[in-house]
Amino acid sequence: MTTQDARTSAATTTTDGAIGSHKDYLEGARPDIRVPVRRVHLTNGRDVTLYDTSGPYTDPAVTTDVRRGLAPLRENWIIQRGDTEEYAGRELRPEDDGLKHTAPRGGRLQGAAGDLAGLDAVFPGRPRQPRRSRDGRSVTQLGYAKRGEITPEMEFVAVREKLEPAFVRDEIAAGRAVLPANVNHPETEPMVIGRNFLVKVNANIGNSAVTSSIEEEVEKMTWATRWGADTVMDLSTGRNIHTTREWVLRNSPVPIGTVPLYQALEKVDGKAEELSWEVYKDTVIEQCEQGVDYMTVHAGVLLRYVPLTARRKTGIVSRGGSIMAAWCLAHHQESFLYTHFGELCEILRAYDVTFSLGDGLRPGCIADANDAAQMAELDTLGELNRIAREHDVQTMIEGPGHVPMHKIKENIDRQQEVCDEAPFYTLGPLTTDIAPAYDHITSGIGAAMIGWWGTAMLCYVTPKEHLGLPDKDDVKTGVITYKIAAHAADLAKGHPGAQDWDDALSDARFEFRWEDQFNLALDPETARAFHDETLPAEPAKTAHFCSMCGPKFCSMKISHEIREQHGDALTPDEVAAGMAEKSREFAASGNRVYLPVTN
Amino acid sequence: MTTQDARTSAATTTTDGAIGSHKDYLEGARPDIRVPVRRVHLTNGRDVTLYDTSGPYTDPAVTTDVRRGLAPLRENWIIQRGDTEEYAGRELRPEDDGLKHTAPRGGRLQGAAGDLAGLDAVFPGRPRQPRRSRDGRSVTQLGYAKRGEITPEMEFVAVREKLEPAFVRDEIAAGRAVLPANVNHPETEPMVIGRNFLVKVNANIGNSAVTSSIEEEVEKMTWATRWGADTVMDLSTGRNIHTTREWVLRNSPVPIGTVPLYQALEKVDGKAEELSWEVYKDTVIEQCEQGVDYMTVHAGVLLRYVPLTARRKTGIVSRGGSIMAAWCLAHHQESFLYTHFGELCEILRAYDVTFSLGDGLRPGCIADANDAAQMAELDTLGELNRIAREHDVQTMIEGPGHVPMHKIKENIDRQQEVCDEAPFYTLGPLTTDIAPAYDHITSGIGAAMIGWWGTAMLCYVTPKEHLGLPDKDDVKTGVITYKIAAHAADLAKGHPGAQDWDDALSDARFEFRWEDQFNLALDPETARAFHDETLPAEPAKTAHFCSMCGPKFCSMKISHEIREQHGDALTPDEVAAGMAEKSREFAASGNRVYLPVTN
Repeated sequence: MTTQDARTSAATTTTDGAIGSHKDYLEGARPDIRVPVRRVHLTNGRDVTLYDTSGPYTDPAVTTDVRRGLAPLRENWIIQRGDTEEYAGRELRPEDDGLKHTAPRGGRLQGAAGDLAGLDAVFPGRPRQPRRSRDGRSVTQLGYAKRGEITPEMEFVAVREKLEPAFVRDEIAAGRAVLPANVNHPETEPMVIGRNFLVKVNANIGNSAVTSSIEEEVEKMTWATRWGADTVMDLSTGRNIHTTREWVLRNSPVPIGTVPLYQALEKVDGKAEELSWEVYKDTVIEQCEQGVDYMTVHAGVLLRYVPLTARRKTGIVSRGGSIMAAWCLAHHQESFLYTHFGELCEILRAYDVTFSLGDGLRPGCIADANDAAQMAELDTLGELNRIAREHDVQTMIEGPGHVPMHKIKENIDRQQEVCDEAPFYTLGPLTTDIAPAYDHITSGIGAAMIGWWGTAMLCYVTPKEHLGLPDKDDVKTGVITYKIAAHAADLAKGHPGAQDWDDALSDARFEFRWEDQFNLALDPETARAFHDETLPAEPAKTAHFCSMCGPKFCSMKISHEIREQHGDALTPDEVAAGMAEKSREFAASGNRVYLPVTN
Repeated sequence: MTTQDARTSAATTTTDGAIGSHKDYLEGARPDIRVPVRRVHLTNGRDVTLYDTSGPYTDPAVTTDVRRGLAPLRENWIIQRGDTEEYAGRELRPEDDGLKHTAPRGGRLQGAAGDLAGLDAVFPGRPRQPRRSRDGRSVTQLGYAKRGEITPEMEFVAVREKLEPAFVRDEIAAGRAVLPANVNHPETEPMVIGRNFLVKVNANIGNSAVTSSIEEEVEKMTWATRWGADTVMDLSTGRNIHTTREWVLRNSPVPIGTVPLYQALEKVDGKAEELSWEVYKDTVIEQCEQGVDYMTVHAGVLLRYVPLTARRKTGIVSRGGSIMAAWCLAHHQESFLYTHFGELCEILRAYDVTFSLGDGLRPGCIADANDAAQMAELDTLGELNRIAREHDVQTMIEGPGHVPMHKIKENIDRQQEVCDEAPFYTLGPLTTDIAPAYDHITSGIGAAMIGWWGTAMLCYVTPKEHLGLPDKDDVKTGVITYKIAAHAADLAKGHPGAQDWDDALSDARFEFRWEDQFNLALDPETARAFHDETLPAEPAKTAHFCSMCGPKFCSMKISHEIREQHGDALTPDEVAAGMAEKSREFAASGNRVYLPVTN
């Protein structure tokens, strides 16, 4: 691969901002706290400011280069705290990338393996040393919060969420929220996950043994954040796991999550029974040093729970869960994730990596929802949450899966109870099994509901779920669907200011400000394109009617007449009292309900 | 237009059945009760029988011809009751079709207007006389049910819903369900709408002054029923309203709904204040004679409610509601729909046309949800429901619109209370305003929830809502999305047998029966296509893994191993007891969790 190739690849990375808006920043308590927002300029002279996850890519003032990575936004904050130090770090090994080739740390661009294409090469950016806590000190946001400190990261998310920094700190201290921010991922823009904040959305990416390249995964990451993904999980399982992750991390403005077990299993050639605490620990440290912000750990799959799944309709559907179940059975021992959990906490604390305690026994179909296996594991996750908390390790809890609507509330209520209100992070849930190819919708329904009832982050599902790997279109559809679910939940929770967005768009609709309607939409391009399919001409964008009713039947137009006749300045009672008079005026005006039309 | 043209047009009508299944019929209490089902044949030798709305088009044993219309399935039942009679009927007038051309009843094919294309011509099928009740007798399904009679239509839906005929009768008698079946639409396959039955889905079609042709509308109707629409509303507002409706009715296997006000307004050249009871009544009779099964009537928009909308964010968004509001203001009188409601009941009773009492003041945005205007109108709809019921006219109540999740339950609970449990028929509701181009999803969320809580029929919303007129793809997306919402609601309500479909699909998924998974899907074509995008080769359809995890990480495969190791024949307790032994066996078998893989 040549430098020329890399530059061409870089050009494909998403860098365009949303139409009709521009990137802006809100300044925080200190000048280096600059919180990105998307500012939509309306044709009536007003602005609407929206939460923005797209990172520096959508800022025309910033030149990005995927070969160099993003600027380390948080680096000074981390250094200034003085509680971490750089160190040599773990030696990289061929098996980190699936036994294929050696990958020296931070080296220059080099064609490491002949079978690699596109960005499939060692990340060429600036050399870096990993960082970890000094002298075993607690360097987690939870640790700071418990000690009463407000970090720049907390200040940042307070501005982002329009809340007080002390509130952010208190929610984190209580374990009701997490702020995933590995000291080795200084490129990330701080964000918070908790039931008293905006509902967040995660997008999964990742190659598999069957398909996909590093280049595609980096592009999917920037693409997902462009449409609103708050975090991205890299679930790669094929070759080049380490290298893919390096490219993704160095270019990601959002926290990155992983499932270290997938890579550990690659290291033992896919034989679950050959997994060990040593291999797993080595992998976790490798990923901590790279900068992974949160890790799914299936430590709740206990030996005695496995038989509870034997009579399920679809058994164990979590990859991590099934791997650990197989290990437990093979060794007839409790899982090394469970028996070494305290040690794992010590490791994660040193880098401020957040636990995402995986639900390895989540139900894979409607028939298995809320069953004994799932509930048993949830109890154990509650126990592990308390241990993690004692170690100052931030923790969230993963949730299902497939759950019919009437069992969703029971599910989250139970989670909140047994896990001391730790943030719930759910996949969907899918509310029916009958619609493969539409599982973004079957699950978007469940996601909106469980978000309303308190889930803090929703893991998206794409139309390809159960069928194949998502391409860029699927990623976009999944993210948009889940942004809808998250925002619907914010509205239902009465999150302060959430309805402003709806109100701005509805005002634009009522006043036939078509361009504003498009620009305020979650997906301006598609909204505009759909309008233009029926009424393509430019005048139609200022027309006081639309293609649904045509010029004569427009209800909005009639409503305007009613408002004009009946006065903005009157209360409903006053309006009623004056109605007879108004009626005479209406008649005097010629009873014209519709404006003259030309066809 | 030539006969040749018509034949070509006919060829475009949807006639293909779903892949991997065939049309079958369940026989009822008498041989002429043949209830259509879609029978899916699984590769394990079993069958799954699914509800089928697609009509004779998907039966290869039936030759359909859109120029002749469907066979009059119910004709003998109607004649045998002996309580209706044919009569000359209302004389057709040029303005019935928008002042464009005369349209003699049941005439031969003739090029009536030079500007018409495709099927835009008088329906050429068999001559027919309209039918109405003899001597003012009550010929509605509600009338029969109140008198304790079980009609063939009730027998038919009992088989269709897998319930007892007496239960169907009792639900209709109680006003909790309607069976829309105009005596002039004998082509319809009986179906029932009520909270204790499967949740139904309506699809809207209809041309407007701006776009669309008759041919397209007929095709959209068959296409919508092909994907599962239980009823279709023809909301045409442009030219050729009468003729479009005739083509749709004669070819529709599902009940057809309309909003007669739209056509009445065309007759007075779009001037709302020139509407009158006489013009409206004439239009209603015209449509009753054609065979419309249910009619939206905005009789709840009272003069005193109109000022309640003056301060709304989006005013009145219902076309019918805004027309009636304008009329009330212009005349300073109570609406003719309200003052003549008893007379209207008499007309509808003579044909067994079902009321769909329209919510003319439904909210058009989140900010206006559940407001005073909407609730005031709902009270009036409750009053009108009681009057209709006294007249033996079947009645359902239309509902919103735009409602955030936390206000949905309040909405339906109030409707059920003030409308004596009359079936609720809701548009969505949309749970947020921010996603034009994705309002099938914003509303699918609300639809699933309100369906669970008791809504009997969901009016679909397509991706084009607020932006343009739906094309065929949009119709399909809207119907599939709403079938998901309806089925999720059936599951949550615990509807008997609803979960069988999910279970069959999940079994197929767990056993890697890919073809069965596709064929059981709501949309087999798309499910198969998505799978093939990643793993196109034929062997992948029998592979015991999929493209998400690849061959090495498959959780389903591991689950099978667990099941094999831990015995289908044991209870969880027995399994637990025997685990140590099993673990030794597992080790003895070589600890192979994965099958050997070739790459």
